[in-house]
Amino acid sequence: MTTSREIRLKSRPVGTPTADNFELASVSLPDPGPGEVQVRNTWMTVDPYMRGRMNDVQSYTPPFQIGEALQGGAVGEVTKSNDPAFKAGDLVQSFFGWREAFNAPAAAVQALDTHGLPPQAFLGVAGMPGMTAYVGLIKIAALKEGDVVFVSGAAGAVGQIVCQIAKLKGHTVIGSAGGADKIAYLKEIGVDHAIDYKAEPDLTAALMRAAPDGIDVYFDNVGGAHLEAALMAARPFARFALCGMISQYNATDMGAGVRGLIMAVGKQLRIEGFIVSSHFNELPAFVEQMSGWIAAGKVTWRETVEDGIENAPTAFLKLFKGENTGKMLVKL
Amino acid sequence: MTTSREIRLKSRPVGTPTADNFELASVSLPDPGPGEVQVRNTWMTVDPYMRGRMNDVQSYTPPFQIGEALQGGAVGEVTKSNDPAFKAGDLVQSFFGWREAFNAPAAAVQALDTHGLPPQAFLGVAGMPGMTAYVGLIKIAALKEGDVVFVSGAAGAVGQIVCQIAKLKGHTVIGSAGGADKIAYLKEIGVDHAIDYKAEPDLTAALMRAAPDGIDVYFDNVGGAHLEAALMAARPFARFALCGMISQYNATDMGAGVRGLIMAVGKQLRIEGFIVSSHFNELPAFVEQMSGWIAAGKVTWRETVEDGIENAPTAFLKLFKGENTGKMLVKL
Repeated sequence: MTTSREIRLKSRPVGTPTADNFELASVSLPDPGPGEVQVRNTWMTVDPYMRGRMNDVQSYTPPFQIGEALQGGAVGEVTKSNDPAFKAGDLVQSFFGWREAFNAPAAAVQALDTHGLPPQAFLGVAGMPGMTAYVGLIKIAALKEGDVVFVSGAAGAVGQIVCQIAKLKGHTVIGSAGGADKIAYLKEIGVDHAIDYKAEPDLTAALMRAAPDGIDVYFDNVGGAHLEAALMAARPFARFALCGMISQYNATDMGAGVRGLIMAVGKQLRIEGFIVSSHFNELPAFVEQMSGWIAAGKVTWRETVEDGIENAPTAFLKLFKGENTGKMLVKL
Repeated sequence: MTTSREIRLKSRPVGTPTADNFELASVSLPDPGPGEVQVRNTWMTVDPYMRGRMNDVQSYTPPFQIGEALQGGAVGEVTKSNDPAFKAGDLVQSFFGWREAFNAPAAAVQALDTHGLPPQAFLGVAGMPGMTAYVGLIKIAALKEGDVVFVSGAAGAVGQIVCQIAKLKGHTVIGSAGGADKIAYLKEIGVDHAIDYKAEPDLTAALMRAAPDGIDVYFDNVGGAHLEAALMAARPFARFALCGMISQYNATDMGAGVRGLIMAVGKQLRIEGFIVSSHFNELPAFVEQMSGWIAAGKVTWRETVEDGIENAPTAFLKLFKGENTGKMLVKL
């Protein structure tokens, strides 16, 4: 018998989540049954999209259930195996985050070959956030030579990778983030114009100063005023990849709306939302290119780490306060 | 010497245009010079997009100038020719609308072969409005088998053609328009669900009743609440062709904004604005297909006609009051 602590959804958040929406519980794990493995997680991820699953609405993923452990990406080590595919000590990836340990069918976990990277990189730059950046920029926004690229949430898990892919491909990149530390980080990774949106009274004006001839690509992680600024600054035939809208996730009503959408007609803009899981066919291309870029020192990344399963809700809540630079992770 | 009356922009409208923004003037036309033709217009078009050209802003077409005749599509008859390419009596199309007659270089007018259609059809179903419907539905929205199609401004010049193309291709079509006459017309042309938006307290609810399983294509002529309803009712991977937003053309500020754009992320929507003039490569395909559909009785159309150049401003103003069914034209 092994004990595992896990974070459960105690109540559905209304508006911005608070610590009260979560509870820490302990469960006892029997030895894994036939065909099962037992895994001790070493890292788990918290991501803004999880906020949507806390609402009781059907979306592209089913809602979390009250009283049950949350779910999300994790990496860990097999501690006991009752399946020939794994042995104790094997490194694995799974979707059984928000818990210290778990039993699962062997088919529900994936062996992880780190190729020399730290394992938690597969929850960030080399995992879904990195692939989201890649798919959004290359496939959805159809990045092409000469494009001026604007990225919001540029110092976040996805944004930091978008900026670097665009830079290594030779583009002018404008990134927005909140606060001096993040702005300094953006400059460090080569962003041409870093906009501190918290210090700018008029985001559109700031974007127009950074891109006097306009932008060709907008990678949206934020929505709201950022999207309005991008509509105003867009050049004809600009493409918007809508990855997320963190400014909207805690809204309790439909809010103020996005103004200036009429620009999309005259400027012939293409505005497209996407979910990375619909683009798994791009995984081999992503892995090949990203591993090359990392090996060549062309892509780097930051992490913000909380320690211990009991601090996973704190890590999650910090996402909505902008208290992470780069990927927000929990070390277990 | 010939006399021609023309409509000039007297002042730039602020908000909804009024009769005061226009003035009627007379000009004397000398005989056409070498290489020129003189044309007497028989029909001219007024279109919502012209409102944009009345503002002093650079867009995809340059602004109209105060004190000068407005411009727009027209068909007419060559009355005098000083160029071998044309002779008196030839039917021509031009962009010299808003005037009774004009002199122009022969290269600035196009000979019009009506293929048995009334000449004014080339300002509507067989002209730019028809091609706008075709390009928006087939190319931008990428209409495919089984799509449920929602069209706003469905009884307008473009909307009436969108509805019919979608119907002849076997689709379920939901059209919105204002008032009982237009709703009756939509039913006449085979629209499956006609929504009278002026009679509906909640457009989203009305759309969801008409399309309980959601919509796959939205052809937007209206913007605002119609666009919000479409976002709410969209199925995953729906495509929106943004053709125009008549609800927004007279706005004096950025307005209330479009709510629910976050739906575009989770539903992976593609929202694309377009201008028909960017798609002239589709002209041969359009002409071939549309002439076949008209000949087969599969596409019909309505016109709303004002008489005389002096009533051209009235015709234009009626567009914004929704007082046209089908194509709004001025007979000269």
